[in-house]
Amino acid sequence: MSVASETPAVYPRTEATTPTRLRDRMRYDADTVHAILDEAFLAHVSFTADGVPHVLPLAFGRDGSRVYVHVSSGSHLATAVRHAGDDGLPVAFAVTHADGLVLSRSAFHHSMNFRCVIAHGPLRRVTDPDELAHGWSVLLEHLVPGRSTDARPPNRKEAAQTGLFALDLDRVAAKVRDHGLAAEEDGDLELPYWAGVIPLRTVAGPAQPDTGVGPVPDYLARWAAERA
Amino acid sequence: MSVASETPAVYPRTEATTPTRLRDRMRYDADTVHAILDEAFLAHVSFTADGVPHVLPLAFGRDGSRVYVHVSSGSHLATAVRHAGDDGLPVAFAVTHADGLVLSRSAFHHSMNFRCVIAHGPLRRVTDPDELAHGWSVLLEHLVPGRSTDARPPNRKEAAQTGLFALDLDRVAAKVRDHGLAAEEDGDLELPYWAGVIPLRTVAGPAQPDTGVGPVPDYLARWAAERA
Repeated sequence: MSVASETPAVYPRTEATTPTRLRDRMRYDADTVHAILDEAFLAHVSFTADGVPHVLPLAFGRDGSRVYVHVSSGSHLATAVRHAGDDGLPVAFAVTHADGLVLSRSAFHHSMNFRCVIAHGPLRRVTDPDELAHGWSVLLEHLVPGRSTDARPPNRKEAAQTGLFALDLDRVAAKVRDHGLAAEEDGDLELPYWAGVIPLRTVAGPAQPDTGVGPVPDYLARWAAERA
Repeated sequence: MSVASETPAVYPRTEATTPTRLRDRMRYDADTVHAILDEAFLAHVSFTADGVPHVLPLAFGRDGSRVYVHVSSGSHLATAVRHAGDDGLPVAFAVTHADGLVLSRSAFHHSMNFRCVIAHGPLRRVTDPDELAHGWSVLLEHLVPGRSTDARPPNRKEAAQTGLFALDLDRVAAKVRDHGLAAEEDGDLELPYWAGVIPLRTVAGPAQPDTGVGPVPDYLARWAAERA
């Protein structure tokens, strides 16, 4: 099995992960980067095919400093990875949480509180049988910790039908805006407009069981309660 | 002012918006496409610069069949648009809602309930003063309807510092998974694994007012109550 590169405590600052502005919003420590990834269910994966940019939302999972996505073997993305050959397909990978609306007295200073991770690198298809099995577990554990042992693993036909792809995190950073209002312009404080923050969060509703299943298992009940 | 192209009742099926599989998940009617856009605060915008794919989360607003985003004039995206010239910069634009975790008895049939809109087309910088003013209003109204009249419009310096960009929706479609469990494989129904759907939704918390502002205005209180 291809072993995920050792996870650093702090990811390196690279050209790809150093913005032209608002550098104080950047975070390179692995704890912040991983927490943002682990709380999310979907990533947006961007790639170029036939000279045209594409983006698609995909479920993903994280294992150390590697992320896995799975997508149909017949999809544009799987085809592009195949055409890219051994070096992998260059992708940009983004995960974003919208945490709040920042309503300022001026249109200009309106903003969002958000947490975002963006990674760049080559996406490669996983073919090693051990890594395939491991990657599927990672995807299920990412949804709900404990889930990988409460489902039937993919058989050979299923594993062929849906491709598993890996991206190693090295050109990666988080960008976070988590404070309250932006500094208003001096003259704006006297204006009669309402200003403040509206926090946003994602909550899980009550489980909707399929017919014929037993009670909600403990690992899932705990998870749902934390997000109710 | 550049007038947004007339909004069709149904967007055309184009090569860019016809997937290779799961075509039953596609929606082309404008009502569905617009509702998905209007409920979201962030889009992921993908573009190619120096041969490398990029993706970034951006606030946006919709006006008919046009979307506006704003981003710093010094950003990579603004630079790429400038380099692209009069034809605009080809982008892929995605908005996605994660509506639920679909936990199947098999790893393979795990899925998400989601609603997604993906659009392709050239992104152009807005320079007409009337469209600039209009576009800023659209961005604020998209956050909270009524907000555009409860904030100071941008002055000339602010409008120069942050670029406003427009994308016309024509190569656009929605992709929706909104049913319950996938059909389980025949042999899997007897397995002792829990299966069902965990719904997810985004809620707004209580407003956090800035110091010195009046009570929460009606338009905002109504909006927040609908999302509490």
